[in-house]
Amino acid sequence: MKKERRSDKNKRLKIAVFDSGIGGLTVYNALKKRYPFCDFIYYADTAHVPYGGKSGKTIIAYAEKIVSFLLRKKADLIVCACNTASAVAIDSISRHCPVPVYGVIDAAVSEAAAFSRVAVIGTKLTVKSGVYEKKLLKRNKNIRVRSLPAPLFVPLVEEGWAGTEIAAKVVEIYLAPLKRMRPEALILGCTHYPILRKAIAAFMGPATRLVDSSSLAGALSGVVRICAGRGKSDFYVSDDPAHFVKTAREIMKVSAGRAHLCTEFL
Amino acid sequence: MKKERRSDKNKRLKIAVFDSGIGGLTVYNALKKRYPFCDFIYYADTAHVPYGGKSGKTIIAYAEKIVSFLLRKKADLIVCACNTASAVAIDSISRHCPVPVYGVIDAAVSEAAAFSRVAVIGTKLTVKSGVYEKKLLKRNKNIRVRSLPAPLFVPLVEEGWAGTEIAAKVVEIYLAPLKRMRPEALILGCTHYPILRKAIAAFMGPATRLVDSSSLAGALSGVVRICAGRGKSDFYVSDDPAHFVKTAREIMKVSAGRAHLCTEFL
Repeated sequence: MKKERRSDKNKRLKIAVFDSGIGGLTVYNALKKRYPFCDFIYYADTAHVPYGGKSGKTIIAYAEKIVSFLLRKKADLIVCACNTASAVAIDSISRHCPVPVYGVIDAAVSEAAAFSRVAVIGTKLTVKSGVYEKKLLKRNKNIRVRSLPAPLFVPLVEEGWAGTEIAAKVVEIYLAPLKRMRPEALILGCTHYPILRKAIAAFMGPATRLVDSSSLAGALSGVVRICAGRGKSDFYVSDDPAHFVKTAREIMKVSAGRAHLCTEFL
Repeated sequence: MKKERRSDKNKRLKIAVFDSGIGGLTVYNALKKRYPFCDFIYYADTAHVPYGGKSGKTIIAYAEKIVSFLLRKKADLIVCACNTASAVAIDSISRHCPVPVYGVIDAAVSEAAAFSRVAVIGTKLTVKSGVYEKKLLKRNKNIRVRSLPAPLFVPLVEEGWAGTEIAAKVVEIYLAPLKRMRPEALILGCTHYPILRKAIAAFMGPATRLVDSSSLAGALSGVVRICAGRGKSDFYVSDDPAHFVKTAREIMKVSAGRAHLCTEFL
């Protein structure tokens, strides 16, 4: 049945995107802009947000439950739009998943691997996993990579303070040690961070290229089939739909309509 | 059986304290200092931290599971050392619990109700619940109360930045509207906030008394029976014991030994 469904060339492709919260909407926005003819389903695990300070085992358990939900919703393609989950859970969820699963790390690595000095910022768990270093070094043995966690970026973005003086100061504190290595590229290894792009670019200067998770949109061009018309988007959250809809609109400029509450994984 | 156990006058009382993370250790510290002869069990729901931005229903579900675990660990008395859970879940968990359950709100309300202008800061959910206003007005009809959320305080404390210039600036931004009402008391309605006490006191000035959740220690004096010797403490977490032990030591000055991992509620 599933095979038939997926091989139907006239059917609109359904892309499922999941994250711990609103951060993955930066990836959703990039995908929606590039593939407006696809259907989308976005799942925000707001009952467990944030993922970045939790253990790998816990994140894998959450991600596996979400993927099984997205499969029941007939996703043709699953995008893990969370760097933390991409860092620790992709292998585990891909193993049992009958549809392709994409994390946000490989596309950013492809874009950054051409440089010789690359800096990476991410959540504590992403940085601890060393996933960016490993993948960058695999592509380019001579690359110099340095990663640091920036735990306050997510709450600053979620508080709507990205444009403030405080955010600029926090950016300066976290990025100063990375600026000293004069990186040619800085990977924004968390889907919230593009919201701080202006402050980060201002501090790092024009010699550092900012690479973020929306690189994934380009990387999918070979697998997404074009189709007529415009797809629709559905939003699911594991907690507090009203808060999700509000912050999605205010911070991520996404209209999430009526997000559905899905509490089966509490 | 249970009745016999609890009525045994020579038995050391076991006080269970739970919170979403390390914040409740400020309450644990106050209890341990006042009742060093009791046994303690501390449960940190680190797989679900933070509670403050989630919905009441979700918090109740988490709290109920934790309480059933603490009862299996033979707690004689349960302290919910989290303002958010105290605000939304105490009634629900007390209803089914065979041992007394104390939240952290009533004791702080008792201490603050004597004043005529009271300010309250807490998580989004605590403030939204209106629990401090309701309880203060019930005690003192003429009291003027104003509450505001301070969502960045928790991540600032957890990042170990309580003593920084950034923390002072964030304190100023959140508290400026409250300072204008010249409150005689400011309730620190989240167990993380006492770590920011110095910055908060510096901004509010000496005319504002700071009331925090450790008031609970005094409120329990009538129910805790004195006993000889020194009790022991056990620590349980729902995720990442090593991170809990590290932050407990560095930020809360608590030695959590080897915290046990308890993943049954993921």
